[in-house]
This record gives sequence, C-alpha cells and structure tokens, in this order.
Amino acid sequence: MITTRHIFLSAAVLALMLAPSTAQTPATERGREIPGYFLPVPDDLSPQTRALVAAPIGRWDIHPKNIEEWKELAAGLGVRAVAATRAMREKLGVAIEPTTIAGVKAFMLTPRTIAPENQNRVFLQFHGGAYVTGSGEAGTREGILMAAFGRAKVISVDYRTSSDAPYPAALDDCVAIYRELLKTVPAQRIGVFGSSAGGGLTMALVLRGKQDGFALPGAIALGSPWVDLAKTGDTFFTNNFVDNFQVSYDGYAKDAAILYANGRDFKDPMLSPIYGDFTGFPPAILTSGTRDISLSQTVKAHRKLRQSGVEAALQVFEALSHVQWTLNPDAPETREAFEEIARFFDGHMQR
Amino acid sequence: MITTRHIFLSAAVLALMLAPSTAQTPATERGREIPGYFLPVPDDLSPQTRALVAAPIGRWDIHPKNIEEWKELAAGLGVRAVAATRAMREKLGVAIEPTTIAGVKAFMLTPRTIAPENQNRVFLQFHGGAYVTGSGEAGTREGILMAAFGRAKVISVDYRTSSDAPYPAALDDCVAIYRELLKTVPAQRIGVFGSSAGGGLTMALVLRGKQDGFALPGAIALGSPWVDLAKTGDTFFTNNFVDNFQVSYDGYAKDAAILYANGRDFKDPMLSPIYGDFTGFPPAILTSGTRDISLSQTVKAHRKLRQSGVEAALQVFEALSHVQWTLNPDAPETREAFEEIARFFDGHMQR
Repeated sequence: MITTRHIFLSAAVLALMLAPSTAQTPATERGREIPGYFLPVPDDLSPQTRALVAAPIGRWDIHPKNIEEWKELAAGLGVRAVAATRAMREKLGVAIEPTTIAGVKAFMLTPRTIAPENQNRVFLQFHGGAYVTGSGEAGTREGILMAAFGRAKVISVDYRTSSDAPYPAALDDCVAIYRELLKTVPAQRIGVFGSSAGGGLTMALVLRGKQDGFALPGAIALGSPWVDLAKTGDTFFTNNFVDNFQVSYDGYAKDAAILYANGRDFKDPMLSPIYGDFTGFPPAILTSGTRDISLSQTVKAHRKLRQSGVEAALQVFEALSHVQWTLNPDAPETREAFEEIARFFDGHMQR
Repeated sequence: MITTRHIFLSAAVLALMLAPSTAQTPATERGREIPGYFLPVPDDLSPQTRALVAAPIGRWDIHPKNIEEWKELAAGLGVRAVAATRAMREKLGVAIEPTTIAGVKAFMLTPRTIAPENQNRVFLQFHGGAYVTGSGEAGTREGILMAAFGRAKVISVDYRTSSDAPYPAALDDCVAIYRELLKTVPAQRIGVFGSSAGGGLTMALVLRGKQDGFALPGAIALGSPWVDLAKTGDTFFTNNFVDNFQVSYDGYAKDAAILYANGRDFKDPMLSPIYGDFTGFPPAILTSGTRDISLSQTVKAHRKLRQSGVEAALQVFEALSHVQWTLNPDAPETREAFEEIARFFDGHMQR
C-alpha cells in the first residue's frame, strides 16, 4: 500500500515539477498579468520610517498644460518643501546663505562643526524635482542633510529649471559653478551629489567634463538617479503605486521629461546619462529603496559603472520609496544613508 | 483674463498639492491595496536573460504532507537540476569528483585553469533549496559557476537536508567540513558562499564560529540569502508572483521553513541569521535582483552588516528573480555576477 501510494504521488509530483506552469499566469514573450494585492507596512521599521511608508500616495496624476501651470505646480510643491527645509536646518544646526557663483544662484550650507577630514573639501549638491521643481530653498534639503550628517560645507545649486529654460540650461548652470570652484579647489577635493534629476545632472556633469576636458570631481553620490528620461526600468512597473512618493512615471514625471528635453532625443547621454560612456568616472555611491520606482535605473547605473571598471557602491533601503531617505532628519535611515555617503566620499577624495 | 485664470489655477493646483491623497488608494497604518497590472519583459536585457525573465512562473503552490512527499518534491526538482549542472560542467570545463570530508559528502569542483591568485585558496559552497532540496549533484550549480568564472577550486557541500534530519544537521555538516579544512588551510584563504538557504548557512557558519571560537573565513558571498525563515521583508509582498522562479513565500518555502526549524523559534539566529550579531563578520558581497522575493532580506542583511562595521558590497540585477543569475551560464549577467564575486573575494582574502 505504502509503495503504491508512493509511486502514485511520485508520478504526480514529478509531472507537476517537470511541466512548465502556464495555467495560472499565462506568460508570454511580452509579459504577464500580476494580480492586485494588499501591501502591508512592514512592522520592523523605525517609527519615523513607518510613518513615511504608511503615508498615502502623493499626488502624481497632474499634467500641466503650459509653463504657467508648471510654475504653479513647482510653487505648490515649494511651499511645503521650504517649510520642511527650514525646520530641518533649525533642528540640525545648519546655516544657509544665498550667494551667486559664476552668475548662477546657489546656497552655502554650513554645519555647526566641519569634520577634520572635510576642512579643505567642498560638496556640490544638485537638487531633484524632475528638472522643473525644487527651485530656491526648496532644493536645499539634501544639502542640509549632507552638511549635518557629513559635517561638511555644501553648495546647493539653484539651477534654472525647465519652466525657465529647458536643457541645457540646468546642466550649464551646474557646470558653470563647478568650473568656477575648480579655480580655487582641486577637483579631488570636490564631491558632487544629487538625487533623481540631481543624480542625472551629476552624471551629465561628469560626461560634460570628459567631453570638454575639465577635471572630474573626486567622488560622486547618486540617489535614485534619473539616468534615462524614458520609461525604461522594470521597477517603473513593479513599483508603480507601490512607491508612495513619486508614485508613477505616467504622471508629471513623463511630462517633465518632455519639457526638459525640448524636442531632443531622450537617448542623448547628456539627457539620459545611462547611454553615456562611464569609463573614467569618479568613484560613485548609489542609494535607492526597495519600493523606489527608480530602483531599476539605480541598479542599472550601478552595474554599468562596475562594468566600466569604476569603483561603485550600492545601498538599498528596505521599503523606502523614491528619495524617501532624504525626507525626515529624525529617521535613523536618513542619518545612516548620509553617513554612509560621507564615509564613501571620505574614502575616495583627497583631504 | 489671463491673470484671473492664473489665480484660479493656482488655488486649484495648490489645494491639490497640499491635500493628502486619500481618494484613489486609501492608505492606513496597516497598508494599502495595490491594483493588478501588466508587467512587461524589459526590452534591454540580453537574449539569454530575456528568456529567463519571460519564462512562466514556476510551480510553487505545493504543500508536501510528509517526509515522503518532501523527498518526492526534491527528487522531482533534482532530475532537471542534475541534467542542467552536467550540461553546465561540460560547457564550462569543470571537473567533478565526489568525496567525503569529516564524514560529510561533498563534491570537488575543478576548473580547467586555476587563477594565480587562487592557487592556495579554497572556496566552500553551500547550496540553496530551502534546506530540503538540492542534494547530490543538483546542488553543485553555483559551485560550478564559481569554479569556472572565478577560476578556483570549489568544494560543494552535500549537507543533510531537512527530509533526512532538520536543523542543526545541515549546519553541523557545513561546520564539520569547514573545520576539517581549517586543519590544512588558513582561514584567510577560505572563501564561503551560497544562495538562498546556502546564504543562510554561510551566515550561520560565521555565527557558529563566533560562538565556538573557530577562525572565520576570509570572505563570504551571499546570493538572495535566506536570513529570516519568517515572512519578513517587503519584497515578499511587492515581488510576490513578480518573481517567476521562487514565486511566493506562501508555497513550499514556508512549509520548508517549518520543517527545518522543527519546532524551534524562527528568531534563533542560527536559523534566521538576521537576528544574530554581525560584528566581526568577514567581508561580504551580497547579490540579488529587482524581481527577487528575497531582495528585502538581502538588503536588510547588507544594511545590518554595514551598521556593524563590516565591509559589505551589494549588487542587484535588473529584472532578475530569486537566484536567477545562477541559472544560465551563457547569460552575461551570470558571468558578471560571479566575476564580481571572485573579484571581491580576491580583494579581501589572503593569497
């Protein structure tokens, strides 16, 4: 009896194991349907991060029809962002001073104490915001976090956004400030960083440096970098609506890509750095989260850097969405992310 | 007119931006509903990887009721795995020799050429398979890839699986072979690696070494490591059914966890190493994919290693599911993953 049953089950289980599964989820060359599901908030997050992860999805399905509406969108987002950065500065003890360098607006961000290893270093921050939002103080958030947790001087670049002028205005502004800095600071003592569009600008700056022959920064840091303006990257699909911060590529992000490119080919490496040549890039640290819609763009950039022989590190935070490790200065993950970035910079830059 | 329209839109857009979004996707402290969607196969993958990613989901909803059925499941999976490893060995020119070390079965895997830096090194591989499958030659897959792409001697440990004996049998076998090796090879010349359950065993070996006072390996490599037997990790939800290889925790993986633990607390660090103390761990490289249901467990282990001051690198492959970079020796990602692991080992081990 036992033997018979054993043989019967063996055959059944073997057939089950050997046959390709097609019944439940028909798979094709094109792709597959993924059923809807309930996504719980993980219970092993810090309280601060739990609040971020449990937050409702942000507004994303906005399609500005003209420059005026883009400016309104940026202003609307800016109101809250400015309040947040002011509270952040106060809490972390970071001083701000508006300035103009090479004709480009910027903010000098200075922490209470500068680490000994950073005395002679300067860090340049390019803010995110799809090349169209984040102007003014609103764009200084990550600069403040780097100044505080990295204990370093940071210059946050208030570049022209697409509603003022499309590509190459933003990049030109970033390059202008960087080249001005080069006159007094050795490149190996300059670190450049930014997230989302700011990560794209950081990589484009390096590509511009390779093209125009100016010295490259000592190291760079890229958070959820927007390395391809097009909807390439698997997590634009798998993390669509899972990411509660950027939410979806198909909202204003897509429109902002079109606005910035202004008719140019998205595959131009100065717009979408993933199509550029990464050989000779400075050491880079990349940051993302498992719910980030840009996780794929981040890991693709990381792999291509490694394939190009570049020293590149990757850190990915559990359950965090697009740039969510830059939002709450009290979240342990925020400190952890920026301390790790600062450590990476320190290990690869000249003193 | 323009001014009036402007003001009207401003108010509307501002209201939109400032109000929390609750209409479309009601968010609660517990979590949110994610709508179903069509997941396309990315079009920028290598043809070999495209085939892996486009494959139908594997069988997962199997719940063996007794040891016999577990053995049948393992045998069913083993039939194809053995054929695959034989083809892999032939293609890559790796010789296999069954052996017994310290009373434990193992396979010696030898490539055509051993790299100069690896002449005096030995690599120990613990196979995956939820502690219950992968016995015999079926478990040698990653050992073959490491031998070939890392050009190194590999010992693949054929430890007892849960259908023979539950925890601590598998770990005891791995520890026995490792300690036998220590008699003739300095620990700094031994690298240990494994994926899924093999990653869990690798970490548990290190924890055992810290507890019992034997020398720790020079470096370790962890692929999609199973660091918590429980369903913790956000990607068990976000990548459920997205991962076409392991597919879901709620299939036989969960049952296998119960079988292995055999009544013990899942939070015992020897079963779920994420709950262990990682200070003093050897340098570690961790590998995962954006579709891997174990991506969260991988990044959580990576973060905890970094928090503990351990040198730890992370590589994540676009669109790949659980251990999918170990399946096709012709996929560029497979070579890339193992060459990166070999480079990491080389940079951190004694010659």
